[in-house]
Amino acid sequence: MSEAPQPGRGLNELVGLTLAALAEGRRRRGGPLPAGGPVRVRAAIHAALGVSPDRTSLLTRTGIGSTAAITGLVEALAAGSVDPADPWCAAHLHCPPLPVAVAADLAVSALNPSLDSWDQAPAATTIETEVVAALAALAGFDPTRATGTITTGGTESNLMGLLLARDAAHADAAGTGPSGRLRVFRSAAAHLSVDRAAAVLGLDDPPVAVIPTDGQDRMRLDLLRRALAEHPGPAVVVATAGTTDAGAVDPLREIAAAVEEHRRRPPLRRPPAAPAATGHPASSGWLHVDAAYGGGALFSDRLAACLDGLALADSVSLDLHKLGWQPAPAGVFLTPRPDGWPSVRVAHADYLRSEDDEAAGFPSLLDRSLRTTRRADSFPIAVTLRALGRAGLGALVDACHDLARHAERTVQADPRLESAFPVTLSTIVFRYRPRAGAAGSAAECTTDRLNRLNADIRRTLLLDGRAVVGRTRTGPDRAVHLKLTLLNHDATHADVDALLRLVAEIGDELAGEDGGGIGSVS
Amino acid sequence: MSEAPQPGRGLNELVGLTLAALAEGRRRRGGPLPAGGPVRVRAAIHAALGVSPDRTSLLTRTGIGSTAAITGLVEALAAGSVDPADPWCAAHLHCPPLPVAVAADLAVSALNPSLDSWDQAPAATTIETEVVAALAALAGFDPTRATGTITTGGTESNLMGLLLARDAAHADAAGTGPSGRLRVFRSAAAHLSVDRAAAVLGLDDPPVAVIPTDGQDRMRLDLLRRALAEHPGPAVVVATAGTTDAGAVDPLREIAAAVEEHRRRPPLRRPPAAPAATGHPASSGWLHVDAAYGGGALFSDRLAACLDGLALADSVSLDLHKLGWQPAPAGVFLTPRPDGWPSVRVAHADYLRSEDDEAAGFPSLLDRSLRTTRRADSFPIAVTLRALGRAGLGALVDACHDLARHAERTVQADPRLESAFPVTLSTIVFRYRPRAGAAGSAAECTTDRLNRLNADIRRTLLLDGRAVVGRTRTGPDRAVHLKLTLLNHDATHADVDALLRLVAEIGDELAGEDGGGIGSVS
Repeated sequence: MSEAPQPGRGLNELVGLTLAALAEGRRRRGGPLPAGGPVRVRAAIHAALGVSPDRTSLLTRTGIGSTAAITGLVEALAAGSVDPADPWCAAHLHCPPLPVAVAADLAVSALNPSLDSWDQAPAATTIETEVVAALAALAGFDPTRATGTITTGGTESNLMGLLLARDAAHADAAGTGPSGRLRVFRSAAAHLSVDRAAAVLGLDDPPVAVIPTDGQDRMRLDLLRRALAEHPGPAVVVATAGTTDAGAVDPLREIAAAVEEHRRRPPLRRPPAAPAATGHPASSGWLHVDAAYGGGALFSDRLAACLDGLALADSVSLDLHKLGWQPAPAGVFLTPRPDGWPSVRVAHADYLRSEDDEAAGFPSLLDRSLRTTRRADSFPIAVTLRALGRAGLGALVDACHDLARHAERTVQADPRLESAFPVTLSTIVFRYRPRAGAAGSAAECTTDRLNRLNADIRRTLLLDGRAVVGRTRTGPDRAVHLKLTLLNHDATHADVDALLRLVAEIGDELAGEDGGGIGSVS
Repeated sequence: MSEAPQPGRGLNELVGLTLAALAEGRRRRGGPLPAGGPVRVRAAIHAALGVSPDRTSLLTRTGIGSTAAITGLVEALAAGSVDPADPWCAAHLHCPPLPVAVAADLAVSALNPSLDSWDQAPAATTIETEVVAALAALAGFDPTRATGTITTGGTESNLMGLLLARDAAHADAAGTGPSGRLRVFRSAAAHLSVDRAAAVLGLDDPPVAVIPTDGQDRMRLDLLRRALAEHPGPAVVVATAGTTDAGAVDPLREIAAAVEEHRRRPPLRRPPAAPAATGHPASSGWLHVDAAYGGGALFSDRLAACLDGLALADSVSLDLHKLGWQPAPAGVFLTPRPDGWPSVRVAHADYLRSEDDEAAGFPSLLDRSLRTTRRADSFPIAVTLRALGRAGLGALVDACHDLARHAERTVQADPRLESAFPVTLSTIVFRYRPRAGAAGSAAECTTDRLNRLNADIRRTLLLDGRAVVGRTRTGPDRAVHLKLTLLNHDATHADVDALLRLVAEIGDELAGEDGGGIGSVS
């Protein structure tokens, strides 16, 4: 064999240029996001890509070379990004990744392992297996029996939960008909990915049953029980541990009991032509817990009890790119059931695995994922768990929880701000409301005007490049609210106070100007 | 606002440690993969993770700190990985990523943009849009009308192709019944992800129709035409541009004509109760081209003509982590159809986008992907396209094609080696066969013995840590073959010759020893 080319040739130099360009781009940005909104960001990126009205594609015959491309584009990306490490970037479950995880991810990019066969990922195969086992144990499952996989996030994990539930319903109730009969139950606050997964999987007929929430954004247990009783067929209940807006945790233990009760319910009277039951009750049940956000509480001694009952789930979604400070994606899907994943299993994959190789001890993770080529996103997770331990990550979770509780006190102390839900994890949902007696007083505040004001506060902050504040709709009238999602463990109480003060001041300014013509929120 | 914490605090130092540990791990490995097979790799990784019979989880109460974790684990990962930059790592469509793309990916990890809302990815939103437009133009689509998205790979792209075909069949043929009636047609050499996507989407009833291939691994056009004629309902045909093993390209232009003919076929006689047709023929057709491998030929003046007809597709999969030298994943899904993607569209996502923000000019890519949180995998692609241009990438494609043609000549010149298919792109499928007169002569070579010999050659090379050679089954008797997938543009003819010589020598040794007891390949 001739001498191998240096795989890292040029990499060290290009990494140095990247780090310098990141710093320069941040310096140019000068705040949590670029000022000027989409028009200005688009123009800057078009310039960096060489896209113009004359030349509409960034792909030209001849390139500009690696040095110019990396310097120009990394700087443009950094200048044009929102920076989750800035204390005033607090809109989404969009964390500032830990430097140790970012550095670990560089090793993944450089070595490029792919988890679909051992001979593309010898070390990474073992690393994923151990990360899944460690997180299964953390979730309360028996790690010697539980199985799981690393996913692209809660969305893929939720799809896998519904898919395994569909497979189990097929296996359990061969007599009750096609998969469409399996009904999905979720709360009104469940993540959008549940309905999307149901549509993809053909589980939207009968339609997904939406269970209302209580005043704290949690699934109404009484209404779930009633809905299950009215549907004596196979059911999958999706509970949420950490709703996207309020961070609320559904009553997991009680929901698990309701699913268990559903499993014991007598089966539907079978149509005469149906085959005999297989020994399983027809009204099978599956509990999937979407803990994409709340799963991080497992690291915290203070908060872990919020997830009481999680270990009773049939499947769980975790996202370590939320309260785990990984660069996206770092999704995790876990199930305590060791048995096969029929719809995930590949029948023939001669080029990826063979029975004789498996007999010779070569493991394969191919049948653990819906993807084929698969980056080793488990590696930054493994390095982070090993570096920080449970206590280290728990301290970060607690810091964010402290920030949110502090924000809650500040909101409660300011008569112009009102919170929508108690703080559970690290978000606070609130809105601005002009003081009585101020120009545009509270008495005149229609829901429409409040919606417009709050939407305008957020857009003003975004367009000025001053802060990234979240926004949602909530309550019976789906009123526009603002949201701080506090994932930056380095932020201080003073940072949060100053941001809330700014929100209220902008609100006062806009309320003073507001003649109703700022634009409407439909 | 208080002073922002330094988001890069510690990152530069940890990146430096990572680069050093990568070099040290490679030095320890000393070849294309670690010697000793799965047992030895597993033990080394367990040691680095601190997993032992006494302590079974890598997650301990207290961590070991970032410096120790990054140094120990990156070194273990590098030592325990196969190295696609080694000329003798030639098993899979598993490329050595370009340093410029790896460096660009570091910026993505550090800034952590997420494409599900503008306020998590201002710059990255424009970058993805421009990458999709540039690649749509490269594929021959009108970039002002085509739409697309960045995916986790051909598997997700193929799923999206079938999903959009399902949506289109629903829209086109409201009278012909449920989605199950849409039938999927693929060749016998199509990627495993097609059947898996069909199962996930409930498109496996009627079962996927498998069209046989010709002697060059291409879909038999005559048999496709016949199969379509026998199924006058909605059809989606998945053609392959670059089969996984042979790199063969189906006759795209002719297949597109067959799909077009199917579209014009008179609809099925409707059942009396069915609603009236919507103006579209009931026998709607969709052509999805899986160009995950072959799409790279678009960069090459020499090879682009292989993909003649690609622009007639309704949807296309490309993978720039194959002939595009990106770290995985860098999948691309494209469609020339600008109209909605119904099953991908999210009905309500108050926390991610709102009508008034969209009216104010804030774009959203949420409805372009089945994922929610979504890493900016478009960025390394953008930097690479800008750095190398079409000619630069084309030269790399041509270099790999040259290597494969050279390998073909070498195989043809060695009486112990026989190739299964002509080279189209950058793979050669072949097998070892003992020379007549040698110990264990050709006359005695049953298929079973040849299967065992070839499987043993590959495993011997893997276990010794000497080379990573691919393996598959092909032909009417599904005989075990070896495969070189040549994606390393820095490898030389001498590297390839030496590897093929080694394969034949190991074959001779094993054939000499072979008393039939080496283990059987079932």
